[in-house]
Amino acid sequence: MPTLDRQGDVFVLDLGDGENRFHPDWIAAVNAALDEVEKTEGPRALVTAATGKFFSNGLDLDWLAAHPDQHVDYVVSVHALLARTLTLPLVTVAALQGHTFAAGAMLSLAHDFRVMRADRGFWCLPEADINIPFTPGMSALIQARLAPQTAHEAMVTARRYGGHDALAAGVVDHAVAADAVRATAVDVAAALAAKAGSTVGTIKTRMYAPALAALTDTEAPLG
Amino acid sequence: MPTLDRQGDVFVLDLGDGENRFHPDWIAAVNAALDEVEKTEGPRALVTAATGKFFSNGLDLDWLAAHPDQHVDYVVSVHALLARTLTLPLVTVAALQGHTFAAGAMLSLAHDFRVMRADRGFWCLPEADINIPFTPGMSALIQARLAPQTAHEAMVTARRYGGHDALAAGVVDHAVAADAVRATAVDVAAALAAKAGSTVGTIKTRMYAPALAALTDTEAPLG
Amino acid sequence: MPTLDRQGDVFVLDLGDGENRFHPDWIAAVNAALDEVEKTEGPRALVTAATGKFFSNGLDLDWLAAHPDQHVDYVVSVHALLARTLTLPLVTVAALQGHTFAAGAMLSLAHDFRVMRADRGFWCLPEADINIPFTPGMSALIQARLAPQTAHEAMVTARRYGGHDALAAGVVDHAVAADAVRATAVDVAAALAAKAGSTVGTIKTRMYAPALAALTDTEAPLG
Repeated sequence: MPTLDRQGDVFVLDLGDGENRFHPDWIAAVNAALDEVEKTEGPRALVTAATGKFFSNGLDLDWLAAHPDQHVDYVVSVHALLARTLTLPLVTVAALQGHTFAAGAMLSLAHDFRVMRADRGFWCLPEADINIPFTPGMSALIQARLAPQTAHEAMVTARRYGGHDALAAGVVDHAVAADAVRATAVDVAAALAAKAGSTVGTIKTRMYAPALAALTDTEAPLG
Repeated sequence: MPTLDRQGDVFVLDLGDGENRFHPDWIAAVNAALDEVEKTEGPRALVTAATGKFFSNGLDLDWLAAHPDQHVDYVVSVHALLARTLTLPLVTVAALQGHTFAAGAMLSLAHDFRVMRADRGFWCLPEADINIPFTPGMSALIQARLAPQTAHEAMVTARRYGGHDALAAGVVDHAVAADAVRATAVDVAAALAAKAGSTVGTIKTRMYAPALAALTDTEAPLG
Repeated sequence: MPTLDRQGDVFVLDLGDGENRFHPDWIAAVNAALDEVEKTEGPRALVTAATGKFFSNGLDLDWLAAHPDQHVDYVVSVHALLARTLTLPLVTVAALQGHTFAAGAMLSLAHDFRVMRADRGFWCLPEADINIPFTPGMSALIQARLAPQTAHEAMVTARRYGGHDALAAGVVDHAVAADAVRATAVDVAAALAAKAGSTVGTIKTRMYAPALAALTDTEAPLG
């Protein structure tokens, strides 16, 4: 389960050491961690990391198959987590030490910056392969954060980007050695901890108003 | 006139060996070819190519001058072709062996990928020079597919991009030798034939919802 | 105060040799110069330049602090200048010989192209640091002109881009030696003077319709 630690001005949220899929309890734990980060005052920044082979493998499809009646509410809760992360009033950095797939990749895009392991692991939006179209909210988020050419290839072809390819395509901001992923993310975050405050929250909220409108649409979240 | 051929999982639509302008009969032939591709089942992809000096030189201005009363209907039919191409439920690759101008360039942007001849031929949106402003639908399509800096220069200055420049600007995805253009496009398409299906169609339709709304606006298609 | 000069087909607007902040009288002088450029007929282009250490340091915060009751009208007038510049019916080039900050940076983005001094001076959106969120109109303008990754870093972190960094990020189109900034801008503008006309004005107006709607919103210009 997700755990929250603090190193100076930087909160480090570890998403877990498994596939770190978006189980409702996992979402609740992430939200509780974000509550803690938000309510803290003063300079601070957030690094979201994980341990093991996966950063996150996305939606919890097993849980979803067992709870078909909660499909819509579940997607609404995932959308809400993405929207919340996208507008946190502080600088956020995702430290991608392992596979970052589907909603896990979207969660990484909701952060201000991404640091990825260079030599192993993929960043991928596999929706075209697994026959789950992006919701309008997810589509809007991805397209708001990536260049048009990159968003198109990632979304239409389900390309698996290694670290160097992800850096070249502008999917991530840094590609570094495995043992430097988290430290680099913490360095980036620490250098920007002084930006924390409502101004940065307002700036992000205005920048992504169309994506946020789609992500918080509870009338037709599935499109 | 346009002809449709099939090589394994890849349909190859040849737009012709002239200027390949958008005459109503030419548009009808392209649509008939797309009907054939769409109704086929199973893995498949589309390469749109041409023969000779031109991929396409765009709107048929001679026909348009002779049929001024059909101006609006004509633009609506061009918009419809662009919208249809943009949302085909399979991977599409434009093989640009020759000059690709105006609506021909827009048609290339409605494909998932573009392969261009490196050493000769230009990709160009000459509208600023010929005093035909982009319709709102055309403008939305171009801007949805190109980076802001590239869209601006292409649309405001009518810059002629050779193959290497087009690759550097992200207008095309590959710039190759003349005799490799079509083969490269077929290779790219064949490798992605398994993506064909309604999911990819839905993904593209959601990604380009604003451009599609403008392209299918029959109330004021000219702005 | 701003002055207008003409070199062949190129008008050169010099914003001044101070901080060139957006005082109401300064805005009026810039608008008067743009009136002169607009009403001239025939081939023409505009270079907006300045003299000394600053291109422009942005809003006149001293004047604003002394006239709190005119805050909204003032922002409306700045928005109007940005919208007008963005849609001038001729090619515009900003020659950034010195610091280009905040609304000064936005004014540079409202031009078609930017030439920046390579070795000294910064282009920067400091709003996150000075606790002045971008208005919705300003946010829309910046995001319409920069790649998503660049707009995000510039707006959220207030990064100071030197000339080489600004070129690499696509913030500017050329980074040149100090004594070549204005001449390069004039060369770029002169080569495109023949584009002047209503078509280019219409093209830009349609391209940036959403940003223009936000910049000309007089109901809630501050968001």
